[in-house]
Amino acid sequence: MSDTPEDLSPEHLEQLASVSTATLSMQLLKRGIRNASMVGPRPLDRTRPRVAGQAYTLRFLPLREDLSTLESYAKPGSVRQAIEAMPPGRFVVIDSRGEQGAATLGDILIARLKARGAVAVASDGPMRDVAEIRALDFTLFSTGAVAPPSIARLCFAGWQESIGCGGVTVIPGDVLVGDEDGVVVIPLALAEEVARDAVEQERFERFVQMKIGAGASVEGLYPPNEATLAAYQTWLETGEPEI
Amino acid sequence: MSDTPEDLSPEHLEQLASVSTATLSMQLLKRGIRNASMVGPRPLDRTRPRVAGQAYTLRFLPLREDLSTLESYAKPGSVRQAIEAMPPGRFVVIDSRGEQGAATLGDILIARLKARGAVAVASDGPMRDVAEIRALDFTLFSTGAVAPPSIARLCFAGWQESIGCGGVTVIPGDVLVGDEDGVVVIPLALAEEVARDAVEQERFERFVQMKIGAGASVEGLYPPNEATLAAYQTWLETGEPEI
Amino acid sequence: MSDTPEDLSPEHLEQLASVSTATLSMQLLKRGIRNASMVGPRPLDRTRPRVAGQAYTLRFLPLREDLSTLESYAKPGSVRQAIEAMPPGRFVVIDSRGEQGAATLGDILIARLKARGAVAVASDGPMRDVAEIRALDFTLFSTGAVAPPSIARLCFAGWQESIGCGGVTVIPGDVLVGDEDGVVVIPLALAEEVARDAVEQERFERFVQMKIGAGASVEGLYPPNEATLAAYQTWLETGEPEI
Amino acid sequence: MSDTPEDLSPEHLEQLASVSTATLSMQLLKRGIRNASMVGPRPLDRTRPRVAGQAYTLRFLPLREDLSTLESYAKPGSVRQAIEAMPPGRFVVIDSRGEQGAATLGDILIARLKARGAVAVASDGPMRDVAEIRALDFTLFSTGAVAPPSIARLCFAGWQESIGCGGVTVIPGDVLVGDEDGVVVIPLALAEEVARDAVEQERFERFVQMKIGAGASVEGLYPPNEATLAAYQTWLETGEPEI
Amino acid sequence: MSDTPEDLSPEHLEQLASVSTATLSMQLLKRGIRNASMVGPRPLDRTRPRVAGQAYTLRFLPLREDLSTLESYAKPGSVRQAIEAMPPGRFVVIDSRGEQGAATLGDILIARLKARGAVAVASDGPMRDVAEIRALDFTLFSTGAVAPPSIARLCFAGWQESIGCGGVTVIPGDVLVGDEDGVVVIPLALAEEVARDAVEQERFERFVQMKIGAGASVEGLYPPNEATLAAYQTWLETGEPEI
Amino acid sequence: MSDTPEDLSPEHLEQLASVSTATLSMQLLKRGIRNASMVGPRPLDRTRPRVAGQAYTLRFLPLREDLSTLESYAKPGSVRQAIEAMPPGRFVVIDSRGEQGAATLGDILIARLKARGAVAVASDGPMRDVAEIRALDFTLFSTGAVAPPSIARLCFAGWQESIGCGGVTVIPGDVLVGDEDGVVVIPLALAEEVARDAVEQERFERFVQMKIGAGASVEGLYPPNEATLAAYQTWLETGEPEI
Repeated sequence: MSDTPEDLSPEHLEQLASVSTATLSMQLLKRGIRNASMVGPRPLDRTRPRVAGQAYTLRFLPLREDLSTLESYAKPGSVRQAIEAMPPGRFVVIDSRGEQGAATLGDILIARLKARGAVAVASDGPMRDVAEIRALDFTLFSTGAVAPPSIARLCFAGWQESIGCGGVTVIPGDVLVGDEDGVVVIPLALAEEVARDAVEQERFERFVQMKIGAGASVEGLYPPNEATLAAYQTWLETGEPEI
Repeated sequence: MSDTPEDLSPEHLEQLASVSTATLSMQLLKRGIRNASMVGPRPLDRTRPRVAGQAYTLRFLPLREDLSTLESYAKPGSVRQAIEAMPPGRFVVIDSRGEQGAATLGDILIARLKARGAVAVASDGPMRDVAEIRALDFTLFSTGAVAPPSIARLCFAGWQESIGCGGVTVIPGDVLVGDEDGVVVIPLALAEEVARDAVEQERFERFVQMKIGAGASVEGLYPPNEATLAAYQTWLETGEPEI
Repeated sequence: MSDTPEDLSPEHLEQLASVSTATLSMQLLKRGIRNASMVGPRPLDRTRPRVAGQAYTLRFLPLREDLSTLESYAKPGSVRQAIEAMPPGRFVVIDSRGEQGAATLGDILIARLKARGAVAVASDGPMRDVAEIRALDFTLFSTGAVAPPSIARLCFAGWQESIGCGGVTVIPGDVLVGDEDGVVVIPLALAEEVARDAVEQERFERFVQMKIGAGASVEGLYPPNEATLAAYQTWLETGEPEI
Repeated sequence: MSDTPEDLSPEHLEQLASVSTATLSMQLLKRGIRNASMVGPRPLDRTRPRVAGQAYTLRFLPLREDLSTLESYAKPGSVRQAIEAMPPGRFVVIDSRGEQGAATLGDILIARLKARGAVAVASDGPMRDVAEIRALDFTLFSTGAVAPPSIARLCFAGWQESIGCGGVTVIPGDVLVGDEDGVVVIPLALAEEVARDAVEQERFERFVQMKIGAGASVEGLYPPNEATLAAYQTWLETGEPEI
Repeated sequence: MSDTPEDLSPEHLEQLASVSTATLSMQLLKRGIRNASMVGPRPLDRTRPRVAGQAYTLRFLPLREDLSTLESYAKPGSVRQAIEAMPPGRFVVIDSRGEQGAATLGDILIARLKARGAVAVASDGPMRDVAEIRALDFTLFSTGAVAPPSIARLCFAGWQESIGCGGVTVIPGDVLVGDEDGVVVIPLALAEEVARDAVEQERFERFVQMKIGAGASVEGLYPPNEATLAAYQTWLETGEPEI
Repeated sequence: MSDTPEDLSPEHLEQLASVSTATLSMQLLKRGIRNASMVGPRPLDRTRPRVAGQAYTLRFLPLREDLSTLESYAKPGSVRQAIEAMPPGRFVVIDSRGEQGAATLGDILIARLKARGAVAVASDGPMRDVAEIRALDFTLFSTGAVAPPSIARLCFAGWQESIGCGGVTVIPGDVLVGDEDGVVVIPLALAEEVARDAVEQERFERFVQMKIGAGASVEGLYPPNEATLAAYQTWLETGEPEI
């Protein structure tokens, strides 16, 4: 399982958590990356604040009755071992291969992940004990809830490997941001510049929303023509006032 | 893009908004139309009141990298132009071809649609900036939320053309009604008679619900036999009293 | 349509309703049954209490225009007749064959099922009049809401036959338990022993959750090694104190 | 399991086997039946002649490990018993619920069905031992081939019940016709009139094909206008000559 | 319905038909176009030669019982009219919205398309009368065969509009090439340069295949390093001999 | 990437190649393994002989535009490197995550795999240059053909890791057998005993097929009752004569 990836600074993580995933996905698109947003995982509780963190990956594979055993839970290479090896501050990402009939984690393992400092969990499959997970004050992105444990339909393959989740590739160390629009994966090498430009994009969109609130047409405004850019420049120079 | 379709009277629109989509779909079934209810689009906020309006259509097609460009946003034939061409009072319907990985609209364009008098938006794909859209006090039917903009996976084809949405054909001018059970499409030519008979059907079902509340069996009641019809007639004549 | 199956005692039903479906599915897995949890049906209102009951089945088949008629509603063999034949205390299970474009039940029939003593309804398809069903104070597991009645896309085949629902086989008389994690099917012959062992499993998991809350690692704890088992034994003997 | 349905005469079966399923599905559409053709089952060998026969149904349900056992093969209620109870001349139809991971029949049981006089088998799932089945000189419609036996993913529910197959309802005794375009289900009550009108339809289409071969436009020809109908009448009266 | 698009020269069409769709899709990828190959449509007869032609589009929408009528076949705006309006040499592309339960064309209309000079038909849905179509000596790409006519599940929307087919956008006039690997869509503006570079790419791959046949490793060969490029240059200069 | 797994003897591989995948999947089921047969991969040419070999795995992940580049083809960690590292006699298995829009291999790489001694390739996605692959005299199991190269929709993750393919987990060194019924995965630890018992099972089924050919009922024969077992014993002792 791979080398520890480089860490992104807390300042950049905070910056990324301050902008919407919609904005981040536009910044990635501008850099030629269209396939960066997971399709499937949804927030268990959409009112929780946006989270950002570097990926810590868990990889599952289809059921194999000789491997998907109760005994496997206590063996080396188990999910338990992966959880105890996780550094704090990580965004746990689980490749469930889209399997909807078994849950990769329940309330006990998620409580432990939280205790170990995970900032969130995202999976393209469901979780179990979801009512109890709601009570844990923890951020979860999944496809819903189902009762059976992972070994009913999956077997655990390892951790900190590159994985797929929700149709997107995740490399350990990639930066993940999740909000009500879902989870976006930012390649680590792009994270700093994306953070910077996303903050600027949201400043402009605040200007646009105020203009629309004031009755402006979207044509020439969004995307902006010369006149809009000039007006925006003035607005910036005058201290970004309410319009 | 097609001729402006005929307008339905405000009275008929109001009548249609007063009856459930379940009732309307039964009235269409009685006229031989089984395939009139969208499968997929769900209300973003199920507590909002039912809406009715005539269809204003937007048509998207699959990603084509030479067409799905940032530049396309500002060109003639863009979504922006379609929005600015929309008359007030319309129910915007979007053919997303079921694509779940990109959003056709975000908070800025929906704010503008609202400003231009749209009564609702329905799409068989997701939206973006959904947290912000919740704050807009606007009725939305979609398949959820996802961060990327439309050009990540779609290209815009035009407006006020016939489209498919949620497995149903929509012709500009058709009457759409949406509530927690989803969105029903009523061919314009049938809208007046469907409105009239739906109101009468709901009157009868109010009678049935009261009977069931009073312990009656459904056999002979719903659908009604002769005795039930007679009792209903009496109930009508006595001023539709609580039972 | 089959003989009336044997009844499970109220005590065992109560015991089953006291433990989570996640726990029950683990007990079934320990008995070699992996495929016992429905995939698809979700609670309409996740805050309602867990329910348990023996299965009363309704079987639907695909649309056949010569059979799926308005007249069929009033004929022998209709859903109405099936509802009026149901004993009290049953968990109604509906095989919708996964059809998402028509609803098998609406508010009127569900009101009657409730009046006849049904404890819940589960289906792998949607319902209609869902806003009204919310007001009925009744437990429903379904795949959502859609306006059209069953005959728009289905025909009714019969009741109290073996069926499939959500990828699981249900035999009339099987015991169903449903909560936020979904619906689990327990073969009647296993219900008593599963109930007993599930209660014991939850006692152990309460101990585990407290340990994790106190900072314990999951390795050696869950599943337990010798030391954990000894500590658990002591905890039991000392009256299961808060840790 | 249901009463023996009425038999269709050999003459009508022969008539139905003489016309294409495309023609038959048009005749059903003219009678308001759109949903009569299976989607999924394809001929194993497309060069075999068209077959027609009355439905003999087998019904499978999802895997249930307590029921889907090796022992179940030898118990009352098994597929074996269903096969030995089948009258000759039947078109066996299998409800596999679309399961693609297990085969409902292999070469041994199909050899026995052939020996007992079955005219064909259709299923919305795969078969096993397909190489051997090719050698049996028997007509099979399925979704392909897969190695595992039925009990790997299914359990057998019974025979001569109403079923669904390929999205269509089949009642024992319905008349099935299968060719390269797939399998069409004709309600028994309609079989005689559909046979008669289908033969006439194909006569007209032979005329149309010759006209097209001779360079005619399809407008006014197919569907025919007055002039075409008159020309057709003349062609009939002159003995249906080559054109 | 749109203006007649510009014509590509017969020489370029011939060049495009001389190279594989695999090669063409690589040339498009090099120009930033990943989404140009249809997923779904397969050749009815894989032994027919590769075909190239400019797109002539037909657009279908979901079933609408008030529009999908037998009478619609003879009305203005029908498929018949679209067929009679087609110029010769076109590659007909049909947007079936992936509907697998109805056929957009049968043997009669395909015979007429062939008579009018169409080079091929591609659709993301099935055809009917497939046995008869095999006898017509015509190139067809589809998802298979099914008996019902289009109006069983679709309604016709128009022709020569932009459409989607197999997950790809097609604009009338785009150049389509189809072989056993399926159908690739080349934007008209790129067709000439893609044709030129594809021919050159295949020349290099012929060299590579010979090297591999002679036992070479793929590393450094494909893609080529400096040494391979030099050897290739020599091979070209020596007249492309067998190796 | 994992240690080289142990080798199975050529005798056992030959034995496994002598029995059908249907028989092997029954032997695995008898050992509690239901999920061992791939769903999806089909033989390109069903007339080729059955093959058996130990798994050599390639793992792909979803498209990531910063990784799925033309340049990646020539970098360390590429598919090319994986191919050149493969020992002879292996059955190459490719985890394509079910992606149908891009091909993991084309004729050039398959020609090289053949040259390096691979016995077969299986993937749950399509291949490209399929017409050319047919000419290579090589055994391929895939989901069909599509023109684009892997980097159009996938990125390569590595080799000789555990993977999923067609819904089944494959560990490097597992024994794969493929014929017209598809590909079965046998855990290496079970391969010898499965081989032995499968040969015996096929001997018994030859006896059964002859009995059925002679008109026997399947009840009591397959599975066998006491009388059948005795008759089989006699048949064995008399030298397995034709019946």
